[in-house]
Amino acid sequence: MIDLKRVRQLVEARLPGYSLPQEFYTDPEVFEFDLEAIHARSWFFVGLEAELPFPGSYLATTIGVLPSWWIAMIAENCERFTTARRHRGAQICDTGYGRKSRLVCPYHQWTYRLDGSLQGAGRMQESFDRRSIHLLPIHVEAVAGTIYVCLAEEPPPFGEFKEKLEPMMAPGRLTDVKLAHETTLVERANWKLVMENANECYHCAVGHASLTSSAYPFATRRDIDSWRPIANEFAGRMAAAGVATGQAPGEPLDAIGGEWWRAHRFPLKQGCVSLTMDGKPSVGKLFSEPEIGWFRWSLNSHAYLHALCDYVVTFSAMPTAAQETIVTWKMYVHKDAQEGVDYTDEGLTTLWAKTNQEDKDLSEINQRGVNGKGYRPGPYSQEAESMLIRYVDWYCAEARKYLDLAAANKAAAA
Amino acid sequence: MIDLKRVRQLVEARLPGYSLPQEFYTDPEVFEFDLEAIHARSWFFVGLEAELPFPGSYLATTIGVLPSWWIAMIAENCERFTTARRHRGAQICDTGYGRKSRLVCPYHQWTYRLDGSLQGAGRMQESFDRRSIHLLPIHVEAVAGTIYVCLAEEPPPFGEFKEKLEPMMAPGRLTDVKLAHETTLVERANWKLVMENANECYHCAVGHASLTSSAYPFATRRDIDSWRPIANEFAGRMAAAGVATGQAPGEPLDAIGGEWWRAHRFPLKQGCVSLTMDGKPSVGKLFSEPEIGWFRWSLNSHAYLHALCDYVVTFSAMPTAAQETIVTWKMYVHKDAQEGVDYTDEGLTTLWAKTNQEDKDLSEINQRGVNGKGYRPGPYSQEAESMLIRYVDWYCAEARKYLDLAAANKAAAA
Amino acid sequence: MIDLKRVRQLVEARLPGYSLPQEFYTDPEVFEFDLEAIHARSWFFVGLEAELPFPGSYLATTIGVLPSWWIAMIAENCERFTTARRHRGAQICDTGYGRKSRLVCPYHQWTYRLDGSLQGAGRMQESFDRRSIHLLPIHVEAVAGTIYVCLAEEPPPFGEFKEKLEPMMAPGRLTDVKLAHETTLVERANWKLVMENANECYHCAVGHASLTSSAYPFATRRDIDSWRPIANEFAGRMAAAGVATGQAPGEPLDAIGGEWWRAHRFPLKQGCVSLTMDGKPSVGKLFSEPEIGWFRWSLNSHAYLHALCDYVVTFSAMPTAAQETIVTWKMYVHKDAQEGVDYTDEGLTTLWAKTNQEDKDLSEINQRGVNGKGYRPGPYSQEAESMLIRYVDWYCAEARKYLDLAAANKAAAA
Repeated sequence: MIDLKRVRQLVEARLPGYSLPQEFYTDPEVFEFDLEAIHARSWFFVGLEAELPFPGSYLATTIGVLPSWWIAMIAENCERFTTARRHRGAQICDTGYGRKSRLVCPYHQWTYRLDGSLQGAGRMQESFDRRSIHLLPIHVEAVAGTIYVCLAEEPPPFGEFKEKLEPMMAPGRLTDVKLAHETTLVERANWKLVMENANECYHCAVGHASLTSSAYPFATRRDIDSWRPIANEFAGRMAAAGVATGQAPGEPLDAIGGEWWRAHRFPLKQGCVSLTMDGKPSVGKLFSEPEIGWFRWSLNSHAYLHALCDYVVTFSAMPTAAQETIVTWKMYVHKDAQEGVDYTDEGLTTLWAKTNQEDKDLSEINQRGVNGKGYRPGPYSQEAESMLIRYVDWYCAEARKYLDLAAANKAAAA
Repeated sequence: MIDLKRVRQLVEARLPGYSLPQEFYTDPEVFEFDLEAIHARSWFFVGLEAELPFPGSYLATTIGVLPSWWIAMIAENCERFTTARRHRGAQICDTGYGRKSRLVCPYHQWTYRLDGSLQGAGRMQESFDRRSIHLLPIHVEAVAGTIYVCLAEEPPPFGEFKEKLEPMMAPGRLTDVKLAHETTLVERANWKLVMENANECYHCAVGHASLTSSAYPFATRRDIDSWRPIANEFAGRMAAAGVATGQAPGEPLDAIGGEWWRAHRFPLKQGCVSLTMDGKPSVGKLFSEPEIGWFRWSLNSHAYLHALCDYVVTFSAMPTAAQETIVTWKMYVHKDAQEGVDYTDEGLTTLWAKTNQEDKDLSEINQRGVNGKGYRPGPYSQEAESMLIRYVDWYCAEARKYLDLAAANKAAAA
Repeated sequence: MIDLKRVRQLVEARLPGYSLPQEFYTDPEVFEFDLEAIHARSWFFVGLEAELPFPGSYLATTIGVLPSWWIAMIAENCERFTTARRHRGAQICDTGYGRKSRLVCPYHQWTYRLDGSLQGAGRMQESFDRRSIHLLPIHVEAVAGTIYVCLAEEPPPFGEFKEKLEPMMAPGRLTDVKLAHETTLVERANWKLVMENANECYHCAVGHASLTSSAYPFATRRDIDSWRPIANEFAGRMAAAGVATGQAPGEPLDAIGGEWWRAHRFPLKQGCVSLTMDGKPSVGKLFSEPEIGWFRWSLNSHAYLHALCDYVVTFSAMPTAAQETIVTWKMYVHKDAQEGVDYTDEGLTTLWAKTNQEDKDLSEINQRGVNGKGYRPGPYSQEAESMLIRYVDWYCAEARKYLDLAAANKAAAA
């Protein structure tokens, strides 16, 4: 039982423009609160339609923390998605990829159709109503080849995200890709520290030497000034080509966004067409125009995603404990690209392997310091940490929304 | 401090004929409740008298979860059993087997007799009353060569169990055996899921291909129908030989049982005399008649035990956390059987190594599914899961008993 | 939130002269209480001045449990010590030794002077007040070459300790040493069991065969009687040499002490000049007179420390969980002693490696027994466990002090 009164006090104790009080990064009860207030009510990126090539193909993934949550998904051309368990609750399908024409529970062989309905169950009594048993549906949406799920009965509005993202993403042709690489990192840091780190590039100039060889570091005012004409030129070129960038020509640094997401298409460093060690494509076969820049979109609860002309890289952070987060990053390349011919795993992954490890190290250093008796919330840089300020404000707003709802429900029940 | 009001609500929320609400399988507080309500008040099978061959022989075992419980036992012809710690509480005897003429605490060398009384303690003050210090006794009972203990001050009645089991077990001659094999499995599942799985064979036909080569799978109505004449013939033959089977001739499928135990002697598949890969004995020396069938007895809290003509196999499940259970299974053979001559470890253990691993896998799949946000208690098969229904009903009844007692004690104190 | 009412009941339940109730050794809530009531308010030994040889040298260590506490220290001739984190809380300095002219945060490169003040922070807004950000100071004291810190805002009085210890320690010349060996042990025991074990030698005669070849075991009354003249002769000799021993000539067994510390200089077994396997020095170069005996001092919360003529050995026990304590022991030798020439690691460490491992084993046996359902607090030996009785009484008194203070604060707030 989460003490919501205590969480409310902690939320109210936060100073605007400052990092959160210690408990938000360390306390198991606040962690439980986060799962209910944020993760049970958020949209999650789970993969690409390209990962479900056939009828009956499935992609099963874990949302959030074991032992609390688990979800199996079945996709038939992305039309059917269900969580999968009934009878005594056995896990019907393990996480991973596969193809099935129906779902058979490994425990007692109850069999389900791909729409979730129960096809057969042996030795059940006459009074047993087969129609009362079906796999529980979850909400699923697809946008330009990317797939999102939400576990809430009433998910947050998805329409604006889809409407805005579709024209921004479509030119990137994320439907023409295949999975090429997957790595899992166990990070000893609260999920919010992992996402806070992802929401600022104040640390990039020193922290990410490889990334900033093709990405603008924005480390100094000079960096920003020199970047403006490039960004404006890019925005103009994209507008001429009919590609939405999510950027007003006069505001080159900012992305568009809704309550729980942000998205932006913007240029790389001059002379670079991809985020690689040398700015050149890491894959011989491209799935979109080389001049299309860097499309980055994010979901506040857990994901940072990047599409270039030669690869897609997805970063998903799943909370597993107050001070542990499982980060999975995947890379996708052109569906016809052959490893060893068109690309090598090392060439494809070196930059992101370095960058994600650097971010892991920074998040863990941050967690260790935050754990300290001497931690005091500190002030953010309004310029260098503007996205981060927005991120933490979003978290506090979501927490308040949940607390208000819980209070209203309690009042209604009384 | 366990919130008993909350546990009461959870118990009341259970639908008859359905699996338990999620918290019973996942919640640390319910786990603590289980230890107090069930394990602190149950009889435990701990081994065979054959494991205590000499005066001063001992068998020391852990009941329940570390760090909560630990018990050391000393047996002298099964007359003395004690938990072992006083002074500053050091563990006097490690788990395992051995032989001792007295117990010396390894910390400060306080010495105890095998009846638990203090023999010597160095450098204690004049006022120290040696008679006030003794190892705490626990309740111990023996039945036809098998040993049981209970940690409660007032254990549940043991008389009916002993009276009924003794004539059923005696022909099996479990006194003529020795320990031949021991394996420990750490199962990532709540102890009730482990025991629920042990209490139904609905999963056997598919889940235990090896076991069902000599055991009836009871997978279809045809299996059951074809089994009845065999069971009746067996019951008649045993009755003629004066062997109690715990079975009325007209009810071939059911075993006798009391509140916390069940027992049954019944036939194997036709042509089989033991539960082995081929139905033939796995040991050259038998300790009972080959036609004596399969004697199975169980203690609801933790154990499933099987005696055949050539071996005994014991399965004991000790809860160590809400989602972890340590299963120890042991096999015993004729006391004069020699490994390499009369049996091989592989020949003896293959079937149970497979079966216990399969059960571990199924219990863990069940736990993972039950952990899911989408878990809902599901309906049992009245026919295929009848023993399981009884098992879960027993658990709920025991939980209610404890809650009523706690409420009465609280009312009396007020 | 610690339930202080419950802790108060547990403290009141303790019988004088008996070991503590079970919860004090096993309960996570009592563990949290201990950290606040004891460790957050105690002085800690952290090392020797000899470990900080240069301007900018630092020694960074962890006080207490991760994830709760962490402390980085910077020493410039022991004048500056600070915990190190601000902005978003990253850990500025890892545990260990080193030398720095300023502190640069590895996350966003904020730079601090060695006095803790902020020197630079990039891209911060105009309104940002650099002077408001500085590393938090902690209390630091040095005594005759040894260093102590306290995390409390108002630390317990240090004056008496310094005043008494300085003349006792100074002849030992602990300023002329260097670190020669460091070992970390993870002990599966509550920190109080580790310190209780360190506070009695009732277990030494059997438990520490190596230690007692040069140290008096005090196992029997005869040991004590034979030791008195030696102790009196030593006390007289030291008095003549002007070395304070902390011992009244008529009371050879007892040490002086304050609320949270004890100290004593006393003789070894006849013919021995150091605590080694053969009583001879383990190092060729001595940093004090060979006849100076054994100087032992202790801090109740965590440390037992020994200075001989040839080495210093420090034992520090940091609580990391209710049933886990990290013990670090270090050995120091003359600063000019060369390994391989004046000493070998094996010769230096054998006795303490054995002794500390023996103590670890005993503490863990104690913990396992205390965990048992059958644990009951037992009576101490007034003679053989007198220091231990004082230790446990100190713990209870400190707990009561904290509880009284918390109650007074609560009353004042209401």
